[in-house]
Amino acid sequence: MSGDNKWFTEIFAASGSAFGLAISKKLDEVQSPFQHIEMFETTHFGNLMVIDGVIMLSSRDNFLYHEMLSHPVLFTHPNPKQVVIIGGGDCGTLREVLKHPDIEQVTQIDIDEQVTRMAEKYFPELCESNNDPRATLKFADGIAYMRDAAPGSLDVVIVDSTDPIGPGEGLFNRAFYESCLKALRPGGILVQQSESPLIHMPLLKAMRDAMSEAGFADLQSLLFPQMVYPSGWWTCTLARKDAKFDGFRVEAAQNPAFETQYYNAEVHQAAMALPNFVKKAFS
Amino acid sequence: MSGDNKWFTEIFAASGSAFGLAISKKLDEVQSPFQHIEMFETTHFGNLMVIDGVIMLSSRDNFLYHEMLSHPVLFTHPNPKQVVIIGGGDCGTLREVLKHPDIEQVTQIDIDEQVTRMAEKYFPELCESNNDPRATLKFADGIAYMRDAAPGSLDVVIVDSTDPIGPGEGLFNRAFYESCLKALRPGGILVQQSESPLIHMPLLKAMRDAMSEAGFADLQSLLFPQMVYPSGWWTCTLARKDAKFDGFRVEAAQNPAFETQYYNAEVHQAAMALPNFVKKAFS
Repeated sequence: MSGDNKWFTEIFAASGSAFGLAISKKLDEVQSPFQHIEMFETTHFGNLMVIDGVIMLSSRDNFLYHEMLSHPVLFTHPNPKQVVIIGGGDCGTLREVLKHPDIEQVTQIDIDEQVTRMAEKYFPELCESNNDPRATLKFADGIAYMRDAAPGSLDVVIVDSTDPIGPGEGLFNRAFYESCLKALRPGGILVQQSESPLIHMPLLKAMRDAMSEAGFADLQSLLFPQMVYPSGWWTCTLARKDAKFDGFRVEAAQNPAFETQYYNAEVHQAAMALPNFVKKAFS
Repeated sequence: MSGDNKWFTEIFAASGSAFGLAISKKLDEVQSPFQHIEMFETTHFGNLMVIDGVIMLSSRDNFLYHEMLSHPVLFTHPNPKQVVIIGGGDCGTLREVLKHPDIEQVTQIDIDEQVTRMAEKYFPELCESNNDPRATLKFADGIAYMRDAAPGSLDVVIVDSTDPIGPGEGLFNRAFYESCLKALRPGGILVQQSESPLIHMPLLKAMRDAMSEAGFADLQSLLFPQMVYPSGWWTCTLARKDAKFDGFRVEAAQNPAFETQYYNAEVHQAAMALPNFVKKAFS
């Protein structure tokens, strides 16, 4: 990149595209036992976290992803009480989940404590609910945690992971989804970030296939914008344990007990609309 | 950008962000009387047109923009027959409009013939309907064309322009919108690309204000993904001459006489859902 500023640029080799943000300074970096974490201050997007060279989140636009990974699944489940977040070390998803007053317990399992330590310093707004008495933060292997979880103990599992390379790899396969299915109560729902509909369709389809093969009864992929991720267009996929999806709690979503920047009931409905090329790919 | 390929990179100074595509070769370039037009072959996105350093379209993802600039307005108008496209020299919007069998006449007015000559060479699929007997291609000033248009002669005006700098500048102000309003028949609708909801909100709001001040009775901004434009998230804004918007022709949109890659009736409905931060900005 040229220009007066320094840039952090991520190259998406698989799609021959690249995205950059202008950087005013490097704030911090740490090599954890699992990955290399860097923090930058950008000129226009607040702070930026990069793991192993891959953009994770910025202050300015993370609300899109965090809201869409939390509120659609919680307003689809009829009565969620017990939630587990796998990954999510920046605590942004945790904050959104805890906005729901009826949630009784949320356990966040990120393998890398350093991600949360960095978030506490550079995204304090995302960590504002970490001391909520309903929240437990564990730093452990999410794959093992779900394998060992008590059967039928959870209402919602949220997989807020990095891409399927590195530590996140084992979160995208049938064995992991079987663990999640077993841990869910009747009516339970798994939701996972599922990459770009435009440039990662083979991966999205493979995830959906693995969820079905693991025994989930129905799938629902939601689409939403996310500027700092490849293509600027992203998905999450919901998988329901034992029944077809049948809409969501529209009235509750229309009258939330909390504020959001992106999510509302119409946006939820809209996220379920599949473009023709996506329908074709899923058929 | 680093890596083995060459890159075309566009820096969005106003948002401190940048987007790049890997280039396998430069195909062509021309300095027209109005602007500098470059054509590249990318590694993953087909051909790429760049005008004055700004990415206009790629083979792979232009369907998003062209479909959303055409089908929503044509399925919102009760019975569109006479259409004018201002700009649109790549002919992609023209092709989409001509897919509607009931359209009687479409006139495309781009100031720069060289854009169309380049499109004929490097995006032949977008020009496949240029010889449709219902189509007229003129190379002239769209501002003057609309100023001189016969009052009450058009059903739909589509402004498919570059950004509001350079030749496109005069297409984003009250005087131009007054011309459009006068040229529209009762029930007529103007639609214009209206930039990114995430990073161009002041511009989007200024456009909406100017449309209202020109006398349009109601506005409707639609949101859709567009990878190669700043933030990957884009809008178009519909302005109706003399009445409030009241949905669209859902049944017709559910049973189109043609194929689309992105657009369908659910996607149309979804595009109207405004996120909370957009509602707030518009209020």
